[in-house]
Amino acid sequence: MKITAKLLSKILNGTIEGDPEAVVFGPSKIEEGKPGTISFLSNPKYESYAYTTEASILLVAKDFQAQKPVKPTLIRVLDVYASVAKLLEYFGEGKPSWRGIDEQAFIDPKAEIGEEVSVGKFSIISKSAKIGKGSVIYPQVFIDERVEIGENCILYPGAKIYRDTQIGNACILHANVVVGSDGFGFAPQQDGHYKKIPQIGKVIIEDEVEIGANTVIDRATMGATIIRKGVKLDNLIQIAHNVEIGAHTAIAAQAGIAGSTKIGEKCLIGGQAGFVGHIEIANGTKVQAQSGINKAIKEENTAIYGSPAMPYNDYLRSYAIFRRLPDLSRQVAELKKEIAALKK
Amino acid sequence: MKITAKLLSKILNGTIEGDPEAVVFGPSKIEEGKPGTISFLSNPKYESYAYTTEASILLVAKDFQAQKPVKPTLIRVLDVYASVAKLLEYFGEGKPSWRGIDEQAFIDPKAEIGEEVSVGKFSIISKSAKIGKGSVIYPQVFIDERVEIGENCILYPGAKIYRDTQIGNACILHANVVVGSDGFGFAPQQDGHYKKIPQIGKVIIEDEVEIGANTVIDRATMGATIIRKGVKLDNLIQIAHNVEIGAHTAIAAQAGIAGSTKIGEKCLIGGQAGFVGHIEIANGTKVQAQSGINKAIKEENTAIYGSPAMPYNDYLRSYAIFRRLPDLSRQVAELKKEIAALKK
Amino acid sequence: MKITAKLLSKILNGTIEGDPEAVVFGPSKIEEGKPGTISFLSNPKYESYAYTTEASILLVAKDFQAQKPVKPTLIRVLDVYASVAKLLEYFGEGKPSWRGIDEQAFIDPKAEIGEEVSVGKFSIISKSAKIGKGSVIYPQVFIDERVEIGENCILYPGAKIYRDTQIGNACILHANVVVGSDGFGFAPQQDGHYKKIPQIGKVIIEDEVEIGANTVIDRATMGATIIRKGVKLDNLIQIAHNVEIGAHTAIAAQAGIAGSTKIGEKCLIGGQAGFVGHIEIANGTKVQAQSGINKAIKEENTAIYGSPAMPYNDYLRSYAIFRRLPDLSRQVAELKKEIAALKK
Repeated sequence: MKITAKLLSKILNGTIEGDPEAVVFGPSKIEEGKPGTISFLSNPKYESYAYTTEASILLVAKDFQAQKPVKPTLIRVLDVYASVAKLLEYFGEGKPSWRGIDEQAFIDPKAEIGEEVSVGKFSIISKSAKIGKGSVIYPQVFIDERVEIGENCILYPGAKIYRDTQIGNACILHANVVVGSDGFGFAPQQDGHYKKIPQIGKVIIEDEVEIGANTVIDRATMGATIIRKGVKLDNLIQIAHNVEIGAHTAIAAQAGIAGSTKIGEKCLIGGQAGFVGHIEIANGTKVQAQSGINKAIKEENTAIYGSPAMPYNDYLRSYAIFRRLPDLSRQVAELKKEIAALKK
Repeated sequence: MKITAKLLSKILNGTIEGDPEAVVFGPSKIEEGKPGTISFLSNPKYESYAYTTEASILLVAKDFQAQKPVKPTLIRVLDVYASVAKLLEYFGEGKPSWRGIDEQAFIDPKAEIGEEVSVGKFSIISKSAKIGKGSVIYPQVFIDERVEIGENCILYPGAKIYRDTQIGNACILHANVVVGSDGFGFAPQQDGHYKKIPQIGKVIIEDEVEIGANTVIDRATMGATIIRKGVKLDNLIQIAHNVEIGAHTAIAAQAGIAGSTKIGEKCLIGGQAGFVGHIEIANGTKVQAQSGINKAIKEENTAIYGSPAMPYNDYLRSYAIFRRLPDLSRQVAELKKEIAALKK
Repeated sequence: MKITAKLLSKILNGTIEGDPEAVVFGPSKIEEGKPGTISFLSNPKYESYAYTTEASILLVAKDFQAQKPVKPTLIRVLDVYASVAKLLEYFGEGKPSWRGIDEQAFIDPKAEIGEEVSVGKFSIISKSAKIGKGSVIYPQVFIDERVEIGENCILYPGAKIYRDTQIGNACILHANVVVGSDGFGFAPQQDGHYKKIPQIGKVIIEDEVEIGANTVIDRATMGATIIRKGVKLDNLIQIAHNVEIGAHTAIAAQAGIAGSTKIGEKCLIGGQAGFVGHIEIANGTKVQAQSGINKAIKEENTAIYGSPAMPYNDYLRSYAIFRRLPDLSRQVAELKKEIAALKK
């Protein structure tokens, strides 16, 4: 990558302020920007760095109003993140250099492969599976029978997709993700043994879902485990059988959702949070990291914390007293003595 | 699948009540049953749905006593779950359509492969490994040297089994499970560096164990990490070196057991629970999700909760007060004032 | 393995006390040592077993002073763990029996492979990747473009390394580890949708780092996620984008570190602990298992516990009162009544 501000602004349909001949070789964080790099200002929290960064070019929003002098050449664009993505595409970064169906991939003759699909080495597309146009299946991926994957998806190496799973368009599944494994369903027998309950449902993942590395989504016992449109799942998350995650909900790493629980739309779930099974969580619920949610949340847009979880501010208030419980306990002992003295 | 009640009852050795010519095309959940589907009633909790379901056929236990009129044709069977499993097998569901040793699998000439074993593409069976009769090794599985796997096991894609691991009969290992990785053992040196302690033990998994996707079981430092008969492990669980899990214990997702801890038989461990190392947990212990167990549990069949864990009901009682700690704190402040006034 | 004490002491450059003709067939734990086995005494905690073990040979430190009679033949060595490692190497244990580049591995013509490198079946070394001298890449590993791996590393089966990752010398990555997956970065849009923030940074792993099975380390948004020299990570850990882990820090299983957090050197992090993003943790901090750390720790060498975390001893003291909160609450109610009586 070596490019002038002038050419960049053309690619990004932006407007230049400063030296159009400024040259950059690669990207940098705004707070660490060095000469010869391009930085981005999108989050207003970082605005102060715009006035100190040593980057040669700074990508900013069209309506950015500098409060102080800015040293780099500015390129104003409509959407900073989209511009970064466009730049990366332009330079071919973030995409594999290989294309097409590798000779060492296995595609079952009864699989349906769309146009411009790429399938990497040692990947398997099983019988009656369908891969939509433009999707990229990295190496060492397993796509079982009757799995349907939409258009423009990316499945990173080692992803394993069990039979009958349905995945929408523009989904990204990171390395070693597992989708469609058996739900954890066992019927306890009188002698204490467990009998496996057949897991004959499936998993449905709608459009624009991203799933982090090593996350697991179990198939339904019957029916479907459903991940709605635009959901973002971080790494190492557990989604049990028959769970439904509402559209545009984001869940941080290592959270776990037990069987048949239904999470609303546009929720924000912190890392390592856990939900018991068979409850419903209202739209817009915010769950603090490590919380344990053991009953339904019916009111929308509330924030909860604790294990078991309670309203966020209530938890903080209770925990503030928890921190000084020894003192409270001492006070009570003191009062006891004083009352005993008074009673004499 | 398209089948009459009459034929179904023959396959399942059941008895019909209602129209023997009722036809079904597939399964459904009892609470969502539609005409043309077969539903199952096994858990008595769902009995009410038996009277409202639209399913055409309903599979029930031999001794099921309807309290109200039932619309679907009933088929009475000895064991509902076993019947469902039998049905699925009959229709070839839940089993891969491929069979035998794939040409693109690698089987070391010194490996021992039983009769009717299937090994999928890009799987590896290393030197001196043994695979018992009827076991199915899905694609992209790694079986290292001297691993022994019993009869009728299923290893899903991406499972990685380190050297010397022993697995019994009728075990199921889901995708990307790791068994036999090195225990987390390091000797701190005087300068603060760590020196790796060689992990030369192994893992022994007895019969009828099921292990969820992306779960990890470390090999012992010396001796063996042992998973006893009938244990059921959910997804993303951590079993450290030299742990022993007693027979017929079930552990929910994302729980973690630290080194050398011994869990009893028929325990029920909730999700995201954690155990410190070197403790023993009595048979039949119930551990609430997210609990942290930091000392031995000696009495059998108790329930525990909290971090650190305490008796289940004690935790709930203490937590009930925790929720209103600010109020308790206010009361104490109030009493202080009143006593001060009394003392004047 | 079948070997005399005499030969063993020669291999290990040790000195014998007892019968030089004592023969052993394999290793055993000191507390379970049986005739015909060799045990090791390294941790002084286990010294009492030295006087009761039935092992035929016991490996001890040069300066070990027996307080009672010892039955096995002793071999005194400078470093017990190093001797065990040497023994294992001598007997060819712990190393794959295969060597070299397997015919069924794929090595891109533009990859650089050092001397004495081994690459297993169905592994992929992509364009412009570099593998240093003596490193062992097990089967089914994926090394993406421009990844650099140092000398004498071991990557176990199923490890997936995304593009541009840098790994130092003598690192061990266990099965199904993922390094370099996209950070969890999304910009919320006004309509509640998320837009993916391109993750164009990388991961740098320094020398002598060990990473447990199924652990995930995300690439930086920009810049690098950094794992410093000698860090030991257990299984199923989440390291988010732009995190830095200081040298010689050890982290137990299932812990999670959110984005941009910087952990100091020589810290000890318990299992299932969680850190919020954008905080700094001082060198030598000890974090109890399951703790939730939500603010910076500035003082070095402190111990913390709780969620949110507080000083270790303060948490224990507060939790001791928490356990008897119902009693405290009753006492307060009692005092209230007594005061009311006094006021009359």
